[in-house]
Amino acid sequence: MRSLRSYVGGQWVASSNRATTLFNPSTEEAIAEIPAGEVDWKKMLRYSREKGTASLQALTFTQRGELLQAMAKTLHEGREELISLATANGGNTRGDAKFDIDGASFTLAAYADIGAKLGDTHIMVDGEPEQIGRTARFSAQHVRLPRAGVAVHINAFNFPAWGLAEKAAAALLAGMPVMSKPASATALVAHRMMEMILEQNILPKGALSLISGSSGDLLSHLQGQDVLSFTGSSDTAKILRATEGVVERSVHINVEADSLNAAVLAPDVELGSETFALFLNDVVRDMTQKTGQKCTAIRRIFVPEDKVDDVVAAMSERLADLVVGDPAADSNVRMGPVATETQFKDVRAGIERLAAQTEEGYGGTGEIEGRGSVGGKGYFVGPVLRVTRDAAKCEALHAHEVFGPVSTVAAYSGEASSAAALVRMGEGGLVTSLYSDDRKFFAELVPLIAAFHGRLYLGSEKIAGQSPGPGTVMPALLHGGPGRAGGGEELGGLRGMAFYQQRTALQGDKAILTAITGVK
Amino acid sequence: MRSLRSYVGGQWVASSNRATTLFNPSTEEAIAEIPAGEVDWKKMLRYSREKGTASLQALTFTQRGELLQAMAKTLHEGREELISLATANGGNTRGDAKFDIDGASFTLAAYADIGAKLGDTHIMVDGEPEQIGRTARFSAQHVRLPRAGVAVHINAFNFPAWGLAEKAAAALLAGMPVMSKPASATALVAHRMMEMILEQNILPKGALSLISGSSGDLLSHLQGQDVLSFTGSSDTAKILRATEGVVERSVHINVEADSLNAAVLAPDVELGSETFALFLNDVVRDMTQKTGQKCTAIRRIFVPEDKVDDVVAAMSERLADLVVGDPAADSNVRMGPVATETQFKDVRAGIERLAAQTEEGYGGTGEIEGRGSVGGKGYFVGPVLRVTRDAAKCEALHAHEVFGPVSTVAAYSGEASSAAALVRMGEGGLVTSLYSDDRKFFAELVPLIAAFHGRLYLGSEKIAGQSPGPGTVMPALLHGGPGRAGGGEELGGLRGMAFYQQRTALQGDKAILTAITGVK
Repeated sequence: MRSLRSYVGGQWVASSNRATTLFNPSTEEAIAEIPAGEVDWKKMLRYSREKGTASLQALTFTQRGELLQAMAKTLHEGREELISLATANGGNTRGDAKFDIDGASFTLAAYADIGAKLGDTHIMVDGEPEQIGRTARFSAQHVRLPRAGVAVHINAFNFPAWGLAEKAAAALLAGMPVMSKPASATALVAHRMMEMILEQNILPKGALSLISGSSGDLLSHLQGQDVLSFTGSSDTAKILRATEGVVERSVHINVEADSLNAAVLAPDVELGSETFALFLNDVVRDMTQKTGQKCTAIRRIFVPEDKVDDVVAAMSERLADLVVGDPAADSNVRMGPVATETQFKDVRAGIERLAAQTEEGYGGTGEIEGRGSVGGKGYFVGPVLRVTRDAAKCEALHAHEVFGPVSTVAAYSGEASSAAALVRMGEGGLVTSLYSDDRKFFAELVPLIAAFHGRLYLGSEKIAGQSPGPGTVMPALLHGGPGRAGGGEELGGLRGMAFYQQRTALQGDKAILTAITGVK
Repeated sequence: MRSLRSYVGGQWVASSNRATTLFNPSTEEAIAEIPAGEVDWKKMLRYSREKGTASLQALTFTQRGELLQAMAKTLHEGREELISLATANGGNTRGDAKFDIDGASFTLAAYADIGAKLGDTHIMVDGEPEQIGRTARFSAQHVRLPRAGVAVHINAFNFPAWGLAEKAAAALLAGMPVMSKPASATALVAHRMMEMILEQNILPKGALSLISGSSGDLLSHLQGQDVLSFTGSSDTAKILRATEGVVERSVHINVEADSLNAAVLAPDVELGSETFALFLNDVVRDMTQKTGQKCTAIRRIFVPEDKVDDVVAAMSERLADLVVGDPAADSNVRMGPVATETQFKDVRAGIERLAAQTEEGYGGTGEIEGRGSVGGKGYFVGPVLRVTRDAAKCEALHAHEVFGPVSTVAAYSGEASSAAALVRMGEGGLVTSLYSDDRKFFAELVPLIAAFHGRLYLGSEKIAGQSPGPGTVMPALLHGGPGRAGGGEELGGLRGMAFYQQRTALQGDKAILTAITGVK
């Protein structure tokens, strides 16, 4: 059985408070172990803070971009091995695994391109030079420089590859060393990625560390130049926000947490139209891809009252074709199990909670004969579609994210303002998708809900042929959302790098500013 | 005696948990009272959140800018009255009071100009449109829209006018209603400002509220679209960061806290040069203006070893001319008392702490015959200059901000790297000022310390004639700093508005995006 150690302080060591076993969620077989061990986390942090910042800050953006490009290439070359590990440890179908692993390479490559564009410099300017005195001689220029600390990344179980890469890409390009902690239960993929990157000897000393298992008292040692970025549950986010470094030393924290992402079908969209087909593809994909374990998955589907039955029927037809099972055992399988026993129990409880306030649409409460809790092995849940005709009163719909292949069709009046009120009941989300070919509908709805989201996907006929759907997070677009979604911002090109940089106003003689920034 | 109530929920009411008396710090006379009272804070917040967001979001940036211009005009017209209140309640000299009150009008006017430039629109675009599909048809545009909540502002005692205005300017222009809480002890000026603004009937309903005294359970009712901005001590910041809304509902918090701002005199600067004169003016002004109660005041003055005695002598000569007393009683007075008895005790304790680790430079420990603790009335402290020749070991110098007319001259080797190491020991500050005419010195030092600051002031001969010094916070430049300084960002033109806006990526058909944003 594989033993997953941490790569910290420039070496592989056992560092977890407690030993942890990793399982195959399709078979419940033990497949790897994180051994218990002890390290001096203060020292490990200091190593990254000193070696890592020195080595990365010595590089230009072009050079840091080249590191990311090499990482992308290495992961792409190791793709098949990583895919089989994702299936074994995460229950991923081949498509699910590619979504995660190719997403990782693609995001690293996208930030490599940004590095090349930023060029052979160490300093990023922020805005134009501005005259602030009587004459142009006395000027100001805002700049961004990397924080002189460590970026600690705590990732979610559902995207072990992409989660590591998307956070690391922005941090490393900005010039901050990374200590990345994958979720223990699905750490196999991230662990192998770290091995691959080390085998290729890509990164300078201290630039990237990997934490396998629990991280002991690491967080209590964070200093004012360190940052903490977390993707996971709201409950864990609360604990992290209350840690000493954050509360007492202004450690910046970025959180991406729960999100009850919505889809809104506008009243102008006819059944059988291309826009309806786009909508249908998106909602079904987002219910079932990665067994619904996607922070951007659509949980609330708002449909005009008179179309509810048609939408449920159309979705049910698609869902009935879906083969659920062990992706390693059967190539026809299109949806695997959820990732862990804990998730399985959470999803089952969440479905019960939602079922108590909704009607059945498809799949009952997701029980699968001879599987999971019903006797056989594996953490399998069937796709579950629920329905409500009184969405405003359906508290569970807006307040509890069921992190599995579960979604609810909810009726609304067809008015944009009514859709907005329901969408806003989610109290902040990552992405909401709107489907219409009526510009007025978009123009009315977007301003009412934009402040509640990090991203809005506007689905229409004209883009139907080339859209990846709302569930795909793109490196050029912001990822994050306010309120329940954690209040964070990641990706979005340069925007996601800002978290790893200190913005500083320089004021003085224009010629001196030019000598520092190169901007005339 | 004046009674200061709160203006919340559209009316003046007593709302403080406890009655509080305001004093004249020069005479210790009671001059106003905040009466005790009780309000439903949840309801008050809801009033602002509903009425205020609706009325402000209905306005374009141009229109919001006009409101700020009217506020600026009103405060400027009421200037003389506000100056005398600042002297009575804050112990301000006329110059100190103008610095605060004119700073308020100037910042409001600067944001009014930004509003005019943003124009007749409700939506702010963030960056350029980007192609994200195979064709330009599928595009993305990031936008910024006002958060649909209330901006709660908690201000410091030292700048009752500017503090209210600089925070309110950015929030109101962004489109968020404000509930502003001045420090109770010096609330007289802010209270009168609120009256003046209401007398002119400038703002729509719910746009601006004023909280006099303690705010009860207000903060526990903050929701995910509300924000909290605080200027004050690190200790209070810790409490605010741990409040329910921040920890559990992702309420964004902006903190501006302690800062051990530094000045660095480069080895190339000759005594008697214009750059030396600029340095001398800046350090003496920043020690004594507002009796040193300025978050941007210079606390640590790093000077090459061989110039320490000369700098101490030159500063002492200036400080000896400074008349300390009641600004209302004597027009020759150039420095008033500190603002409160609590501040007086804190400053005295801080001086003792610093004195234990430093030599005397000027003014002993700041005791003034027949004043303050030495017998007479008033919270007077004389200017205190301390000296250390072993700055790296002087813990109090880097760790404790003495918020009064107190600064320390500290020797360094003359090397930029040695200055950087000492400056960084402050663990994050608002502003550091460097004095040199050697571009190489700036080019070496700036990258080493920029990440520890929100602003760097580069003093040189060429700008000596037109510089306001590092202590003046300008609306176009960022104000805030990492680590000990709280990790926040205010002002900086549009940059300071970002806190009050949600950034959202819109993705879809380019023509639909144009219909929403107006950008082609």
